[in-house]
Amino acid sequence: MAHMHKPLRTDIAWATTDQINVRGLDLPTQILGHMTLSDYSFLQLTGRSPSNHEAYVYNAILMTLVEHGLTPSALAARLTYIGAPESLQSAVAAGLCGLGSVFVGSTETSAKMMTDVLPLGTEDDGNLEEHARTIVDRFIGKGEIVPGIGHPLHKPIDPRAPRLFEIAEEAGFSGRYVQLIQLVSTEAERRTGKELPVNATGAIGALSSELGFDWTVIRGFGVMARAIGLVGHILEESAMPLAKEVWQRAEDESSAHIRPGASA
Amino acid sequence: MAHMHKPLRTDIAWATTDQINVRGLDLPTQILGHMTLSDYSFLQLTGRSPSNHEAYVYNAILMTLVEHGLTPSALAARLTYIGAPESLQSAVAAGLCGLGSVFVGSTETSAKMMTDVLPLGTEDDGNLEEHARTIVDRFIGKGEIVPGIGHPLHKPIDPRAPRLFEIAEEAGFSGRYVQLIQLVSTEAERRTGKELPVNATGAIGALSSELGFDWTVIRGFGVMARAIGLVGHILEESAMPLAKEVWQRAEDESSAHIRPGASA
Amino acid sequence: MAHMHKPLRTDIAWATTDQINVRGLDLPTQILGHMTLSDYSFLQLTGRSPSNHEAYVYNAILMTLVEHGLTPSALAARLTYIGAPESLQSAVAAGLCGLGSVFVGSTETSAKMMTDVLPLGTEDDGNLEEHARTIVDRFIGKGEIVPGIGHPLHKPIDPRAPRLFEIAEEAGFSGRYVQLIQLVSTEAERRTGKELPVNATGAIGALSSELGFDWTVIRGFGVMARAIGLVGHILEESAMPLAKEVWQRAEDESSAHIRPGASA
Amino acid sequence: MAHMHKPLRTDIAWATTDQINVRGLDLPTQILGHMTLSDYSFLQLTGRSPSNHEAYVYNAILMTLVEHGLTPSALAARLTYIGAPESLQSAVAAGLCGLGSVFVGSTETSAKMMTDVLPLGTEDDGNLEEHARTIVDRFIGKGEIVPGIGHPLHKPIDPRAPRLFEIAEEAGFSGRYVQLIQLVSTEAERRTGKELPVNATGAIGALSSELGFDWTVIRGFGVMARAIGLVGHILEESAMPLAKEVWQRAEDESSAHIRPGASA
Repeated sequence: MAHMHKPLRTDIAWATTDQINVRGLDLPTQILGHMTLSDYSFLQLTGRSPSNHEAYVYNAILMTLVEHGLTPSALAARLTYIGAPESLQSAVAAGLCGLGSVFVGSTETSAKMMTDVLPLGTEDDGNLEEHARTIVDRFIGKGEIVPGIGHPLHKPIDPRAPRLFEIAEEAGFSGRYVQLIQLVSTEAERRTGKELPVNATGAIGALSSELGFDWTVIRGFGVMARAIGLVGHILEESAMPLAKEVWQRAEDESSAHIRPGASA
Repeated sequence: MAHMHKPLRTDIAWATTDQINVRGLDLPTQILGHMTLSDYSFLQLTGRSPSNHEAYVYNAILMTLVEHGLTPSALAARLTYIGAPESLQSAVAAGLCGLGSVFVGSTETSAKMMTDVLPLGTEDDGNLEEHARTIVDRFIGKGEIVPGIGHPLHKPIDPRAPRLFEIAEEAGFSGRYVQLIQLVSTEAERRTGKELPVNATGAIGALSSELGFDWTVIRGFGVMARAIGLVGHILEESAMPLAKEVWQRAEDESSAHIRPGASA
Repeated sequence: MAHMHKPLRTDIAWATTDQINVRGLDLPTQILGHMTLSDYSFLQLTGRSPSNHEAYVYNAILMTLVEHGLTPSALAARLTYIGAPESLQSAVAAGLCGLGSVFVGSTETSAKMMTDVLPLGTEDDGNLEEHARTIVDRFIGKGEIVPGIGHPLHKPIDPRAPRLFEIAEEAGFSGRYVQLIQLVSTEAERRTGKELPVNATGAIGALSSELGFDWTVIRGFGVMARAIGLVGHILEESAMPLAKEVWQRAEDESSAHIRPGASA
Repeated sequence: MAHMHKPLRTDIAWATTDQINVRGLDLPTQILGHMTLSDYSFLQLTGRSPSNHEAYVYNAILMTLVEHGLTPSALAARLTYIGAPESLQSAVAAGLCGLGSVFVGSTETSAKMMTDVLPLGTEDDGNLEEHARTIVDRFIGKGEIVPGIGHPLHKPIDPRAPRLFEIAEEAGFSGRYVQLIQLVSTEAERRTGKELPVNATGAIGALSSELGFDWTVIRGFGVMARAIGLVGHILEESAMPLAKEVWQRAEDESSAHIRPGASA
């Protein structure tokens, strides 16, 4: 069982009796009052402060993911809160647990799809139209939905996507990944005959790749952003409750078919 | 079992086929590219955008809470990640679950302590020195530590506290709660003969109360902020692991006293 | 920052290359095939195997807490699952997060209420009727509900409570805490003029105290038991979904008052 | 946004004013005092009570997964508990979040591997040795480890595996999946020249398949069982703390390379 000890090391932060330092900056005098929260999160993830243009695009990505109404995640947080109102942090945690492959986590799928054919940091783009065809073939060939395009609710177009592309354009980050996701949309529309414009997920995947973020990080953007949104839902629940009513209706209806005396 | 249905209602957000609206603002055209993340979180919690001065103080509160090194919460997130690397969101959730009464959640204790004697929204402050004595009596009388003052590591002073007070001063938010927590510190030092300067927790409690936030909300600031910090720790863990080593050392040592053949 | 190392120690389990030992028993040859799951959990918590009579009562306590239909906790687990179906463990975790002061955690309140006046391990019971009056005074005096009696749904009586008392009686564990909770019920009914029979929570608080468990442990019984129930709900959700429908109805209705075009 | 309502339905449980019914049985009179916790969990998952032989094997599977010392999951639960001791349920939840693809969740991989080539419910087994070769080819061909065989610590053999096979044999459940996992071990040893006996994970995958459980359920066995183990760790932490020491050592050492004044 004895094993050789490997050293433990973190480069994120350190504290002494009179200093607290994060990523090489003195927290009180160089961070507090000097940075925005979004820039600080960029620093925390990458170890460096963003340029103004990077900050503009990165901030827009996070902002897109904060809030999308009474989602399953918001409902789970509210239902948790009514059982444990003394543990706000656990209600947020419960809400975050659902940000997996189906919802917010899906932003990573579109980024992976693009960086699989066009890796981060490579010089030669090859033929973007050919890359788009390769991607569409891969998903349609397996009978799967192509990530990042189409939307069950937002028609004809998810209004967040063109705005995100506009922001990328303004900041000089409308590069090959933005082109690629739009070519993927065009190719998929041609192949299926359906309207499949780029959605927010696809735009975020493209912009994150333009900024040079690995696809494995991108789920983290949604997690940070949604934590903010969930605190808002829990505060509203404490002032204007709805979770108890959602629960009681669901419980009543769902067992009516086997419950004696229920008007099923 | 049948019960009268109460209406379900949220005022946070709505979506239609072509619009997404949060707190009365059109997400794509009025929020994305126009607000900072911190201001957006203020909007999400309160339903209105902050003034510039409010934004300056509120942002500093959140920034203080993002990161404090390899905390128990950061370790829990990293240990969770090595078992379920496919679920980054659950590792963050695990880390947030520990932000309870002992660590980040303690910011609410100092705010409650102050607003119990000096409620939000009241006009007459009474005698602040008397309020400070009341508070110190209450805790010392029960043999308890007074929240918001003193620090186990940071000596003689937690460097975040004076900086937060400076920021409040610059923004015109250095009011009665800032005075009160400093009087609490002075009174407690007088009573105990120990150095007990205001710490970050006490400063955050005071500034949050100056901004008019109810003490029940304040734990949420730490939860939102720390979610950002935890994503950073998980990314570092994926690139420069330490959790496995922490685990194996702890497992080896902790069972050596009963494990046959161990050099206990 | 340097601090003296304290030793790390656990007495629960150890493993070598050829052995796995839990609480002093060889897992393969002395536990697997030889114990029930409930007895093993008693061993895990207390460090010793239960007597037959203890095992009978303890098992009944756990069994009571496994399942109570489509609770807020079950709904939170199901809503989490539909976002992250690849992380069954996180859906269970989300469901457990809500077992706080309001629902399952409330079993500890009735146990604390009783052991506060009649501590575990004391010899002299004093006057049980007087203890009951003290308890009822304490809660009714503060305008609070007395824990462990009355039920919003189950009328005239929660059918689990008399059955748990019957089981305690059969096993010789119908002692002073069982008497006390029944006297509390009688006294509260006398004082309020309402029907307030002992409920499952009160019976579990009493039986756990009869077995000698500290009140701080009792929430753990519900957590272990409900984990079983939640796995069942998630499996049903995967075969016969309801969470998506619950979500969509709630989202539609809750934002109809502000959503353009909605038939609010 | 309006959508047709689909009915909500659960078959697990129902309650009326005077009855609580789980899976068709009256909880007070047909479950409490009459079933073991393990049998009840089988009922909860499958909708029917197990036969004696099924119960014997199923119980052994769960028992194997309760406890394995100071795992990353147990450490995460303890580190969470010291920050939020008032929320035992959240500490267990944090611990469960790590039962993903790497640790307990891996039991499902070996079951999937076997039922992919030998589906549940099929009559004709084909040639088991050929199935074993197919499996080993698949993993070794991709340079991957074959699930369910070999162990980093337990050598020459994981002592839980032969005991689980013995239990299956006694109960008449030593069928084609038990044979298959052993043939997989033999074939992998032949191909690699290493000792790769079946481990607990492989044995649990085989026994679960013998009982007819779909591989997607098996992670749930570990989640239920480990919830019991984690409650034990949290109780021990409250009586004999180690998490704070683990944290402080890790924090001290990990930042020593950048912390001024540290003896790195």
